[in-house]
Amino acid sequence: MTTRTRILTGITTTGTPHLGNYAGAIRPAILASRDSNADSFYFLADYHALIKCDDPLRIQRSRLEIAATWLAGGLDVDRVTFYRQSDIPEIPELTWLLTCVAAKGLLNRAHAYKASVDKNVETGEDPDAGITMGLYSYPVLMAADILMFNAHKVPVGRDQIQHVEMARDIGQRFNHLFGQGKEFFTMPEALIEESVATLPGLDGRKMSKSYDNTIPLFSSAKEMKDAISRIVTDSRAPGEAKDPDNSHLFTLFQAFATPAQADEFRSELLQGLGWGEAKNRLFQLLDSELGESRERYNQLIERPADLEDILQHGAKKARAVATPFLNELREAVGLRSFVAQAQVAATTKKKAVKAARFVSFREDDGSFRFRLLAADGEQLLLSRNFADGKTAGQVTKQLQSGQPLDVRSEELNFSVWLEGECVADSPAFVDSAARDAAIEALRIALTPVQD
Amino acid sequence: MTTRTRILTGITTTGTPHLGNYAGAIRPAILASRDSNADSFYFLADYHALIKCDDPLRIQRSRLEIAATWLAGGLDVDRVTFYRQSDIPEIPELTWLLTCVAAKGLLNRAHAYKASVDKNVETGEDPDAGITMGLYSYPVLMAADILMFNAHKVPVGRDQIQHVEMARDIGQRFNHLFGQGKEFFTMPEALIEESVATLPGLDGRKMSKSYDNTIPLFSSAKEMKDAISRIVTDSRAPGEAKDPDNSHLFTLFQAFATPAQADEFRSELLQGLGWGEAKNRLFQLLDSELGESRERYNQLIERPADLEDILQHGAKKARAVATPFLNELREAVGLRSFVAQAQVAATTKKKAVKAARFVSFREDDGSFRFRLLAADGEQLLLSRNFADGKTAGQVTKQLQSGQPLDVRSEELNFSVWLEGECVADSPAFVDSAARDAAIEALRIALTPVQD
Repeated sequence: MTTRTRILTGITTTGTPHLGNYAGAIRPAILASRDSNADSFYFLADYHALIKCDDPLRIQRSRLEIAATWLAGGLDVDRVTFYRQSDIPEIPELTWLLTCVAAKGLLNRAHAYKASVDKNVETGEDPDAGITMGLYSYPVLMAADILMFNAHKVPVGRDQIQHVEMARDIGQRFNHLFGQGKEFFTMPEALIEESVATLPGLDGRKMSKSYDNTIPLFSSAKEMKDAISRIVTDSRAPGEAKDPDNSHLFTLFQAFATPAQADEFRSELLQGLGWGEAKNRLFQLLDSELGESRERYNQLIERPADLEDILQHGAKKARAVATPFLNELREAVGLRSFVAQAQVAATTKKKAVKAARFVSFREDDGSFRFRLLAADGEQLLLSRNFADGKTAGQVTKQLQSGQPLDVRSEELNFSVWLEGECVADSPAFVDSAARDAAIEALRIALTPVQD
Repeated sequence: MTTRTRILTGITTTGTPHLGNYAGAIRPAILASRDSNADSFYFLADYHALIKCDDPLRIQRSRLEIAATWLAGGLDVDRVTFYRQSDIPEIPELTWLLTCVAAKGLLNRAHAYKASVDKNVETGEDPDAGITMGLYSYPVLMAADILMFNAHKVPVGRDQIQHVEMARDIGQRFNHLFGQGKEFFTMPEALIEESVATLPGLDGRKMSKSYDNTIPLFSSAKEMKDAISRIVTDSRAPGEAKDPDNSHLFTLFQAFATPAQADEFRSELLQGLGWGEAKNRLFQLLDSELGESRERYNQLIERPADLEDILQHGAKKARAVATPFLNELREAVGLRSFVAQAQVAATTKKKAVKAARFVSFREDDGSFRFRLLAADGEQLLLSRNFADGKTAGQVTKQLQSGQPLDVRSEELNFSVWLEGECVADSPAFVDSAARDAAIEALRIALTPVQD
């Protein structure tokens, strides 16, 4: 059995998807999710949307429209995990855990933040004028999005590579501080989308809401037709040969046509097809390509309760991963149930505080070792072999001197290091509570008693 | 029925409470909670603890010890709400909502952060060297702690006043952006603890873990006795008159004695009571004052499962407030269930998109008004009276010109403003979904149609 690659993509919910979004991002992502090696996580990044948008109606509408668009486009929610970020309370909680380990200096270097600062400085404003904490700390939320599900790959544009690197940095720091040898977080990799087809808009520039040059995706056929009629062309009359390679109308056609269809359209244009008729061809192509999806879209939009069910189902799938994992992380930082802790406390008290003790002994080969024993005689720690009893004694003495313990732990085992050398190993314990109790016992046994 | 004052206090869980914490903070807080006008919220601030402490065992132990200390000290969990911050997932979620509205410039001015920066600058380091995002954004978490429960009063030391002010600032901004006239958040007030008795430690300086001069609170009688024996006194011999007013041993005694007991002790010291005997008296006083609580403490520590139950019960009480309130806030920013949204979408489609229209009419008094009617004839908006039909017509025209709408909403009603004047009012709607649908209808009706 091979492990599937977990791929995670967030979609910020501040707008209505247009044809450019569909061809450039949605369609390729849906195709990619059908790869049998892909374990895809797609989510509506509505916590992110709050950074950019304080219009609740817009956010609300956008979430509905984006969800319906992806589903109408053919996303198979049984195969992928499709959820709303704001349905996963583990995300903001992990965000806080990561906030506590993220270096502020790291966030200072974020491009989006720096661009805003530069703009303020240019205009003589305070460097942080108008900048919210949302904009500033957004990479930490994004790190939580990625690390929560231990994504292997995060498809991003060039401008987002830095955020994936920050997620690695923050995750690594958490691993280092709390992992005790265990790597909680997988290091995510940015998957650069070099070849993303950016579709031209009505005026030939990149299709973008901010240029107001978009073609609607799943609105009515009439609205699509109207938009297409506004595509800017050159002034060659019907009968004159057109230049397909310099016509964004052709580029748009190509993005949805089979190679054969594109070839035919090209030769028709060369042969003088009028622009009016060309627009008609484009409309017919898009309508036949998207008509069925549009119908599904309209049906979905009309049944928001069903959409809600689908997303709740997605949230359940996502939380089946997130909830136990967050519990493990909470445990690691010390946010444990007192009940689990009870074991530790009890074990500590009984085994260690009262009577943990060092015992030296001689091996058959003449070397010396020592053990740390709990009150009930259970062996908590076993040293390596020392050439003579004196050295073994010096090591226990040095351990007992009260200098901070260098304990390295992995899984159910731990080892004690002195001046870079491993001097003793524990046996493997039955569970992590027992392991922690033993480490605690060791600490207490080695703390010099004050009087 | 009078409204009780809600008072909120967080206790950072990074240490073991000592006698100084008890006399200075815990005992007065427990007393204050018995006031019949007080609705007290006390919580273990373990998310905050993560900022300062990356030792999970220490956090884990501290949470248990602090919980047991407050309960042993007499906190009545039926009267107050006593919970662990990390048991309230609404807190980190609200933190994110507030992060999106908090100005970064506000956080730049936080004392704790500025002090760290100053230190770095002094030593020639990068200003943000060694500073985590936790330290930097901690006031936003604290704002969430306070605003989540709409606390009226937050007892704080002088150094924390600024944080309460920041909570006000952030809360106000949220109210302004999303309240549509409604004040979601109560503005909290700092309750300055001027007269907090800071207890002297063994050496006469303020009792503090960082001076290593503390007297343990609920450890064994022997440990308490040992600590007391180390209290620094002057070298006057038994029989020589002592100076109670310059003896921190006397100050310690006074903090736990009745006035009569203190008077007696004072005169004994003046009469030459030996320091050894004086220490003995102090021990006996503390032992009789704290012995019973110590026993309760030990019982609680031995029953972590019961403590867990108590805190789970507290979390339930706290979440009974937090969960519905957070839902309201989510709703306000646009994170709504699609089902609730369904109503809006359906109403919008049917009533507005297809056929919302303006209708002018003449009142009996000769003035003119206009109505915005939904397709089914339901009145969405009613204008004020205009002197003549022409003015009324100009106003509708101006509204339809496509300039951004100035809609002010409160409760189930909303009004439309033009150049600072209210030109139309809606009727009150049956619920907020209907209200939103009507606003949406208005927006759509007034958006110029592109062709």
